[in-house]
Amino acid sequence: MKDKVQTAIVGVTGYAGAELARLLLHHPRLKGLPPVFAGRLDDKDMARGGVPLAEIHPQLADSHGNGLLRLEPFSWELLAERGVDVLFLATPHEQSRQWVPEALLRGMRIIDLSGAWRLNEAANRAVYAFDDHDSEQAAATQAQAVYGMPELHRAEIAKARLVANPGCYATSVILAVKPLVAAGLVNLNHGIVADAKSGVSGAGKAPTARTHFMYAADNLSAYSVFSHRHTGELLEQIGLSAEEIVFTPHLLPIPRGILSTVYVQFREPQTRASIAHAYREFFAASPMVRLYEKALPQIQHSVRTNYADIGFQLDAAGSRAVVVSCLDNLLKGASGQAVQNLNVMLGWPESEGLE
Amino acid sequence: MKDKVQTAIVGVTGYAGAELARLLLHHPRLKGLPPVFAGRLDDKDMARGGVPLAEIHPQLADSHGNGLLRLEPFSWELLAERGVDVLFLATPHEQSRQWVPEALLRGMRIIDLSGAWRLNEAANRAVYAFDDHDSEQAAATQAQAVYGMPELHRAEIAKARLVANPGCYATSVILAVKPLVAAGLVNLNHGIVADAKSGVSGAGKAPTARTHFMYAADNLSAYSVFSHRHTGELLEQIGLSAEEIVFTPHLLPIPRGILSTVYVQFREPQTRASIAHAYREFFAASPMVRLYEKALPQIQHSVRTNYADIGFQLDAAGSRAVVVSCLDNLLKGASGQAVQNLNVMLGWPESEGLE
Amino acid sequence: MKDKVQTAIVGVTGYAGAELARLLLHHPRLKGLPPVFAGRLDDKDMARGGVPLAEIHPQLADSHGNGLLRLEPFSWELLAERGVDVLFLATPHEQSRQWVPEALLRGMRIIDLSGAWRLNEAANRAVYAFDDHDSEQAAATQAQAVYGMPELHRAEIAKARLVANPGCYATSVILAVKPLVAAGLVNLNHGIVADAKSGVSGAGKAPTARTHFMYAADNLSAYSVFSHRHTGELLEQIGLSAEEIVFTPHLLPIPRGILSTVYVQFREPQTRASIAHAYREFFAASPMVRLYEKALPQIQHSVRTNYADIGFQLDAAGSRAVVVSCLDNLLKGASGQAVQNLNVMLGWPESEGLE
Amino acid sequence: MKDKVQTAIVGVTGYAGAELARLLLHHPRLKGLPPVFAGRLDDKDMARGGVPLAEIHPQLADSHGNGLLRLEPFSWELLAERGVDVLFLATPHEQSRQWVPEALLRGMRIIDLSGAWRLNEAANRAVYAFDDHDSEQAAATQAQAVYGMPELHRAEIAKARLVANPGCYATSVILAVKPLVAAGLVNLNHGIVADAKSGVSGAGKAPTARTHFMYAADNLSAYSVFSHRHTGELLEQIGLSAEEIVFTPHLLPIPRGILSTVYVQFREPQTRASIAHAYREFFAASPMVRLYEKALPQIQHSVRTNYADIGFQLDAAGSRAVVVSCLDNLLKGASGQAVQNLNVMLGWPESEGLE
Repeated sequence: MKDKVQTAIVGVTGYAGAELARLLLHHPRLKGLPPVFAGRLDDKDMARGGVPLAEIHPQLADSHGNGLLRLEPFSWELLAERGVDVLFLATPHEQSRQWVPEALLRGMRIIDLSGAWRLNEAANRAVYAFDDHDSEQAAATQAQAVYGMPELHRAEIAKARLVANPGCYATSVILAVKPLVAAGLVNLNHGIVADAKSGVSGAGKAPTARTHFMYAADNLSAYSVFSHRHTGELLEQIGLSAEEIVFTPHLLPIPRGILSTVYVQFREPQTRASIAHAYREFFAASPMVRLYEKALPQIQHSVRTNYADIGFQLDAAGSRAVVVSCLDNLLKGASGQAVQNLNVMLGWPESEGLE
Repeated sequence: MKDKVQTAIVGVTGYAGAELARLLLHHPRLKGLPPVFAGRLDDKDMARGGVPLAEIHPQLADSHGNGLLRLEPFSWELLAERGVDVLFLATPHEQSRQWVPEALLRGMRIIDLSGAWRLNEAANRAVYAFDDHDSEQAAATQAQAVYGMPELHRAEIAKARLVANPGCYATSVILAVKPLVAAGLVNLNHGIVADAKSGVSGAGKAPTARTHFMYAADNLSAYSVFSHRHTGELLEQIGLSAEEIVFTPHLLPIPRGILSTVYVQFREPQTRASIAHAYREFFAASPMVRLYEKALPQIQHSVRTNYADIGFQLDAAGSRAVVVSCLDNLLKGASGQAVQNLNVMLGWPESEGLE
Repeated sequence: MKDKVQTAIVGVTGYAGAELARLLLHHPRLKGLPPVFAGRLDDKDMARGGVPLAEIHPQLADSHGNGLLRLEPFSWELLAERGVDVLFLATPHEQSRQWVPEALLRGMRIIDLSGAWRLNEAANRAVYAFDDHDSEQAAATQAQAVYGMPELHRAEIAKARLVANPGCYATSVILAVKPLVAAGLVNLNHGIVADAKSGVSGAGKAPTARTHFMYAADNLSAYSVFSHRHTGELLEQIGLSAEEIVFTPHLLPIPRGILSTVYVQFREPQTRASIAHAYREFFAASPMVRLYEKALPQIQHSVRTNYADIGFQLDAAGSRAVVVSCLDNLLKGASGQAVQNLNVMLGWPESEGLE
Repeated sequence: MKDKVQTAIVGVTGYAGAELARLLLHHPRLKGLPPVFAGRLDDKDMARGGVPLAEIHPQLADSHGNGLLRLEPFSWELLAERGVDVLFLATPHEQSRQWVPEALLRGMRIIDLSGAWRLNEAANRAVYAFDDHDSEQAAATQAQAVYGMPELHRAEIAKARLVANPGCYATSVILAVKPLVAAGLVNLNHGIVADAKSGVSGAGKAPTARTHFMYAADNLSAYSVFSHRHTGELLEQIGLSAEEIVFTPHLLPIPRGILSTVYVQFREPQTRASIAHAYREFFAASPMVRLYEKALPQIQHSVRTNYADIGFQLDAAGSRAVVVSCLDNLLKGASGQAVQNLNVMLGWPESEGLE
């Protein structure tokens, strides 16, 4: 590894991209500015050699209102010229599907924030309808991909050339459930219920009927019932069959944050201490998970942090638990976790630049 | 029954009380103004003979900003003087517990919006810690109480002298689950999960740390896990043991509305048609329930109406359903349902004054 | 006038159109259903003979979720067939500009909710860039138009064939300022400031960057400074030159409601009583204006009513006032005022169907 | 000055105190933890030697959920023991009024966030009703106080022993108006209008009727018209008589942020360039003010930053301007500005720890 690591971002116009640019800009081990690339620029913006990023995300402006970062048209040549070591893709999944094989060939390490490479099972990938499903290159690339959740795959991420950064909902549910399933405590015959609620930034920056203020404000709605794309991540990472979990996302009238309420039944009666122990063991080396001892976490406490907050309540008999898991969908649910993966890949402290 | 029915409200300073006053004021079969009484008034307000209700609830003011209703100090004599036939109590449950026996003795019919008389089982009532638990009068009164959900107990409500108006969460969950359980479809061994989310008006008008804008806004939090007072209503009305359901309430950052997401497993595979049939049968005579054929209901659609909106999705195998139930916690969840009960008690069309 | 008045609406897919449909549906003097027409329908909807309005506005659904109103393709023949007496246009201003002359020829009375016919002065109309500015027919139509604010033009509205329903901001500011200017109290040399704030429904139903939840929520922004289209209405109706008032609209993070804070300087010192007197005199016959005696109005109190609420504070010297004016932008600011105009045109009580 | 500066905070339970603790904890030139003191602790908390700050402000918790800071009972002895150089008071103004003279005697430098020492004129101080108005000690202390707005008083702050940190509204309005008045451009005969809107955190952490979610949400209200406590700061710092400005605060339904819309008339016609020049000159050495060249600032862009954002629009004649000023009421409007003052007092870069 060189003295100084050079990162770059492609696809920085969305909410996650903006957060990523901000995090990389202030990361104490990344001295220079990260170049930021647009997948596509219109003619007018091409003519002026790109777009100041502060025009798109005013909160990235500096004290003179100008901003330091400039959105440039993407090209492989430019990436090579800048000596990019680690490439972040915050692009649509179809685009990531195309570009990752090329980037690997060119020797870069990649952290892909899309859903393109998260799923190992063809059946689970079906929801994305990738058009390269029978490509050998795609299969070879998929084989290299590591699911980018350090709490589960720290050692593999450290060596990975391609990290598939998890979905926001998936992160929220997996961190709540995996420690209990891994410890063999859960009665899977009864089925796990994951009732998840997300702020509107999770629905993307494009103005649609669903992201209209009049639709989202003073409202709550369930969507993608039995059909959300993140379901496959739950099955593969927790190790469940489709019958063993129901996952329902809801659109909350708030800008950021996810709260998942997860319902599990135990094989044998548990105590508060035995459950707390299972979580503490599982997350012993994980600085970005906060376990709540008494109270339950709330969305407000984890928003604008990279923490996943986890707490639980047992019923009187110790046979059932309600687990509450909170995180910021743009940080631990996207760009913060991407930077956490960067830290793991480079052998830096896992929470560097994230506190 | 007299030509003209005289109603009265005690306890009108909260959100449900204000909605009730508004509904009774505009009810087409109630010509005169309903007298409204405060359980307690301070000396200053006593000295001026009560308080114009528009001072407390400006939205009840008329075109001259004055308001027609006046909050008077409560007395049994005044109730008798006004010839009150039906008494609405929107008082704390301790107060309802004290006053209802007296009101029955005085020949009034009562619709009590508190939790005082909703629960038949002593075990379920324990959460309220009533101090009259071994009183014969209390037992006799309880024996007369009818649970005021017309969709379940229409015939009994018509004859009842004491109607115990249901809890807001309980209404939301019971209407979603009861038709499926009553039709014998649900596998209760697997446990029902009711994940409910309510707007802040459900938390009452008193300023507290939890109702502070800075706590509730941009937030979501679970509370009273495994211990909410409405749980007993679910058990008794649906006919479940405590192990057969988990109910978790959450505080939503919106003023009004409840959405409950309910998870059930079936004994045998079902079709969309078979489930829709079960709901249609159960609610055939119920004008205040709207069944959604395709889309799922959202909080926005039921808020400021007295409708309970119910929709569902089945999984591919037909073995599990996610049922979504929405209502306005102050209307179908409280005062609207109280007026619906009034209509049933008096033999009027059930939705009179509610559309 | 026939026994039964037949109304119709064209353009009912927006927020104001939905409110108008709701109001007409429940108006006690309009027995039948109002036909509702779309300016344009796509082929699929044409093929099925229109669209159930409840598909577009679920809150207009009845207890069976179906809705009573059906959006039909517009045609003059259909209007004639239904015997429409009063036509409401909730169409874009270009469309109202085209259709109104034809509707007048066909003998209908018209209430136009757009900005098409509100402005008498060509200079003020320039902001709309109408393409018929030198048309004789347009001039003749404009000459018939009456500005539809009953508090200012009640007698003319009663006789009008074409009522130009005012802008929401304009209603809010004119009602606050006109009584003081009309009474000769205001020192116009000092300039009036009208700082107005509106909920997001005022920005329309089309999803745009500005109506995205992430833009509007937790935010406040000023826009159209010195250039908002409603400014001409202020000048013409209050009787001011452009130098005598500054009007600044802001986008509030709430669904509905406008609050305008208006600053005036008086020619001579005033008392609370003298100002209150001026308002009371001006609004003596106006049932839809509520004057606040002590407190200032708030958006919450007027939302979901057709009232304009007005209150004020004087400085110690009595030389300046801050006037606060609140209304619901979709009711008194649009559809409620349109129904108020209907009532005036037909000689019905002005607040019929609006309380 | 010692190698290492020791700060302390008294009064850290409110929103501004929590932000201040967070800023000092992460300030790159303040290595140790700042001790934090409560003015008063109840017996139970005294018995356990104070309160972990994370219990009160969960967002200050570290990765183990414990938090590093502990709220201790205040005593002068403890302050001395810790060798405190700079004392921040985030206490009620009565308490600051009592403690500051003592702290000065004990040789500490003080940054007081309350309104206790901001006002030089007795007439302006009257709104606070201090009970020491004829005390010589109070007068002597007041004489030492410097108004803590670096953009106006940088040199004096550098030498000050007592810095009176400005009010949030005052900061917002002064920064918008002062440069234009200082340049002699404003026609004060016409009166300046400052229409300001603040998020709910400005109303304090105590649960009250006004901070209840049901009051603040979906609402907007004006308050303290012609009587807000920050008015005196505007008069003294801009140099105006009471007749030359009207200031109206409003309560916005958002957690944080202030937007002030300010209306000025010029003595002579101005151009966009001449006004921009006046601002640029005035703020040439001020890193925490961002001047907007084209667009107007919005609350969202300055929230969670220490920037004051300023933009403006001129009318066609160049005779009037609407100036829009945005800031975060807890940062540039309180604790961020306090840290900015600390930086100036210690000769550190002004934006240290604030970007």
